[in-house]
Amino acid sequence: MNSVDLNCDMGESFGVYSLGNDVALMDFVSSVNIACGFHAGDPSVMRETVRYALEKRLSIGAHPGLPDLVGFGRRIMAITPQEAYDMVVYQIGALHGFVRAAGGHLHHVKPHGALYNMAAQDALLAGAIARAVKDIDPTLVLYGLSGSALIRAAESEGLRVAHEVFADRTYQPDGTLTPRDRPDALIDHDDAALNQVLDMVCQGKVRATDGQWVEIQADTICIHGDGAHALEFAAKIHQTLQSSAVVQSM
Amino acid sequence: MNSVDLNCDMGESFGVYSLGNDVALMDFVSSVNIACGFHAGDPSVMRETVRYALEKRLSIGAHPGLPDLVGFGRRIMAITPQEAYDMVVYQIGALHGFVRAAGGHLHHVKPHGALYNMAAQDALLAGAIARAVKDIDPTLVLYGLSGSALIRAAESEGLRVAHEVFADRTYQPDGTLTPRDRPDALIDHDDAALNQVLDMVCQGKVRATDGQWVEIQADTICIHGDGAHALEFAAKIHQTLQSSAVVQSM
Amino acid sequence: MNSVDLNCDMGESFGVYSLGNDVALMDFVSSVNIACGFHAGDPSVMRETVRYALEKRLSIGAHPGLPDLVGFGRRIMAITPQEAYDMVVYQIGALHGFVRAAGGHLHHVKPHGALYNMAAQDALLAGAIARAVKDIDPTLVLYGLSGSALIRAAESEGLRVAHEVFADRTYQPDGTLTPRDRPDALIDHDDAALNQVLDMVCQGKVRATDGQWVEIQADTICIHGDGAHALEFAAKIHQTLQSSAVVQSM
Amino acid sequence: MNSVDLNCDMGESFGVYSLGNDVALMDFVSSVNIACGFHAGDPSVMRETVRYALEKRLSIGAHPGLPDLVGFGRRIMAITPQEAYDMVVYQIGALHGFVRAAGGHLHHVKPHGALYNMAAQDALLAGAIARAVKDIDPTLVLYGLSGSALIRAAESEGLRVAHEVFADRTYQPDGTLTPRDRPDALIDHDDAALNQVLDMVCQGKVRATDGQWVEIQADTICIHGDGAHALEFAAKIHQTLQSSAVVQSM
Repeated sequence: MNSVDLNCDMGESFGVYSLGNDVALMDFVSSVNIACGFHAGDPSVMRETVRYALEKRLSIGAHPGLPDLVGFGRRIMAITPQEAYDMVVYQIGALHGFVRAAGGHLHHVKPHGALYNMAAQDALLAGAIARAVKDIDPTLVLYGLSGSALIRAAESEGLRVAHEVFADRTYQPDGTLTPRDRPDALIDHDDAALNQVLDMVCQGKVRATDGQWVEIQADTICIHGDGAHALEFAAKIHQTLQSSAVVQSM
Repeated sequence: MNSVDLNCDMGESFGVYSLGNDVALMDFVSSVNIACGFHAGDPSVMRETVRYALEKRLSIGAHPGLPDLVGFGRRIMAITPQEAYDMVVYQIGALHGFVRAAGGHLHHVKPHGALYNMAAQDALLAGAIARAVKDIDPTLVLYGLSGSALIRAAESEGLRVAHEVFADRTYQPDGTLTPRDRPDALIDHDDAALNQVLDMVCQGKVRATDGQWVEIQADTICIHGDGAHALEFAAKIHQTLQSSAVVQSM
Repeated sequence: MNSVDLNCDMGESFGVYSLGNDVALMDFVSSVNIACGFHAGDPSVMRETVRYALEKRLSIGAHPGLPDLVGFGRRIMAITPQEAYDMVVYQIGALHGFVRAAGGHLHHVKPHGALYNMAAQDALLAGAIARAVKDIDPTLVLYGLSGSALIRAAESEGLRVAHEVFADRTYQPDGTLTPRDRPDALIDHDDAALNQVLDMVCQGKVRATDGQWVEIQADTICIHGDGAHALEFAAKIHQTLQSSAVVQSM
Repeated sequence: MNSVDLNCDMGESFGVYSLGNDVALMDFVSSVNIACGFHAGDPSVMRETVRYALEKRLSIGAHPGLPDLVGFGRRIMAITPQEAYDMVVYQIGALHGFVRAAGGHLHHVKPHGALYNMAAQDALLAGAIARAVKDIDPTLVLYGLSGSALIRAAESEGLRVAHEVFADRTYQPDGTLTPRDRPDALIDHDDAALNQVLDMVCQGKVRATDGQWVEIQADTICIHGDGAHALEFAAKIHQTLQSSAVVQSM
């Protein structure tokens, strides 16, 4: 029987600022990536998000990002591998504190935004992040873009990995995501996105933008939590997986 | 035989900004309190400071402070007990990450600056901090002002505590520190400071500003790491304890 | 003929975080207080808010706050008068930059949150803020709590002032606001709030919580921009003033 | 008669952290670039630095940087031109506030670190910065790398410019600076550096790393304020210019 994890970024509120619809979305996902205070999140938001995730018995991950709150961690920064190591250790540690304090267990790490994208391509940065995860706890699972440099680095370090795929993004013939500035980067229709998910999860392949079938490993699917449509789509994908007898777990 | 711990705040550099003389001072102390990025310190400084402390086999503590880098955590802020809990969990967790990554062991927690002073007097704040420490790891030792509300809160939570005294500050007849804005708040001469330390450690008492002897518990002595004189005084107090056959340990 | 200013705090969004309903509210107020990046706001939000306010021909004010983004500037901090002076000059200057760049004119300054409340009571802090405003531009109007220490300090410096009153807060027999932790601090019904506004504006008095009439100067009324009800109430008060032939201006 | 400006970055201390030797260096330079709180500096440091510079009758410039305090604004960030515009307006405005409050006059703007380097090559970013300067005050002088995209953008906007050269950096045959990761990037001997300065100032040329003479415009020379040697070298270059009858002014 097929199985896949559904993950969603959460805990991205900050102070008086509220973002996302975390509690409602938790009914449809199997794992959450909780922001750690650098690109989003604050200590109180982290504590509350950990508590809700534990109540829903979800797998909890740290979601470390670049130190760029005003840019939400989405702007590339020329950090060194050592700096990447340090900021990842710091943020995993901080979230781990809340998970321990709540009597829970930290399950995985998924870098955020520009850090995720840089680590998908830059082997040195990827290696530093993988070592940070391993040094803190070698049983943690590292989530990264399916087939990316980050996945390879994690495997080199002996870590367990989760190849991440996207429901609403198109893929190119070489298996990489179509860049966002291309007109065909996004899948607009839910049915097409759901079919792509089933292809990836059940058959291990995806139809690229040129029509070719490309092999892809799909251990976890990223659901976006923002946008008015997010909750509805999360419910649909959750139900589609159930109808197709795909076990949702990590 | 008498024993006492000598502790010093460390890891207070930030980015290009260097503060203190950490490595040299580590030869004279038995435990260090490492800043966690809120009032001072950054992830790289934290990693390096942890590494040096492990090499010197010192007891490592987290030194959480208020989120006020420009004020160095010295300005009172009207935070709620819940906010105190959250910022302490976050910071202990972050430092714990570096200690784990380096294969070490986190020994204690000592709040910094205004947070330390507020927790010495405010039972609700003290209780929140003690619970944060206990929830993360009930084997941690909580350092607080000797005889203060923070010590009492920690004992109520079943935590081990270290009553902290100061070598270069005078005490009032009720056993509290003379406020800094009073002319007789500081002890200027090293010999007087060293004698006060020996009185406190070996006899459990201190001569107050009015000449009375007051009982005081001295489990750990705080050495200040800043100032040109800091290293010299640290060496003196270290040697004085050795000459007086006081075991220096925590 | 009576006249009064209606002011509202704006530009409190930050990065991806959106707060308030600035553009819609601008149809009902005569002046805006724009956050300056310390307690809320960022450079891009400041530029956009200034642009909208200029399009609507509103009086633009700087709204400096404490350096506490996660606490939204609402937590008391023990800053010195010199620190207050410095942070106010910095923030007024920054907003002034955007106003100049857009070809506009900076009209007033209103401290935010805890800084506003501290300056209402602390004469030294109030004096420092008034000097900061005067030193940057002596033609600026300083908005402060009606009858407060901040107003007195501004008058001592020769600044023009605006005594600020609140539509939805009750007053005590001594003319001060009823503290928020008291059950009768807020006026829940719009009609009662509107009547209070008309009493204050047209008759210079307010009925205190004990039923007595108290004299109060009302140069400007603060409208709250957050909350689902904010826009509706702003429209009501705007219309009430028009119906009562009160000129809305600063 | 030849003339040149000597400029130095100043006001880079932050809170308890002290950096540089500003007051002493002010005896040797004709203009200062004062950090504005993003990469370094805080409101109190800005006020004090402005005051000292006014006492020494130096030309005062704003020194805006990237919002990266821990990285001292030295790490490339992928900001948009609009973001560059906004952060430059904000920072110039803030410094302008202190200059106005002290009764002085803002003379120039020089971007810092990675923002300076990016603006030297990226015409869109350079254009945004030049527009920010012009929109705030078209009489400001924009300092940029000699012959760079930033200088061209400033000239396109009708701004006055200062071509900046470096005493202790070598140049390549195409007139650009030798990248810092190259072994011959720095000039180690003071005499060689002083000769290079005189060549640039008096003859408008510099000997490139391959021995060729290259034309270069030198309106202002950057003196580095950090390092033990900084003060000594500043004195030497100041004296060399005097001995060579070069007028030091902007």
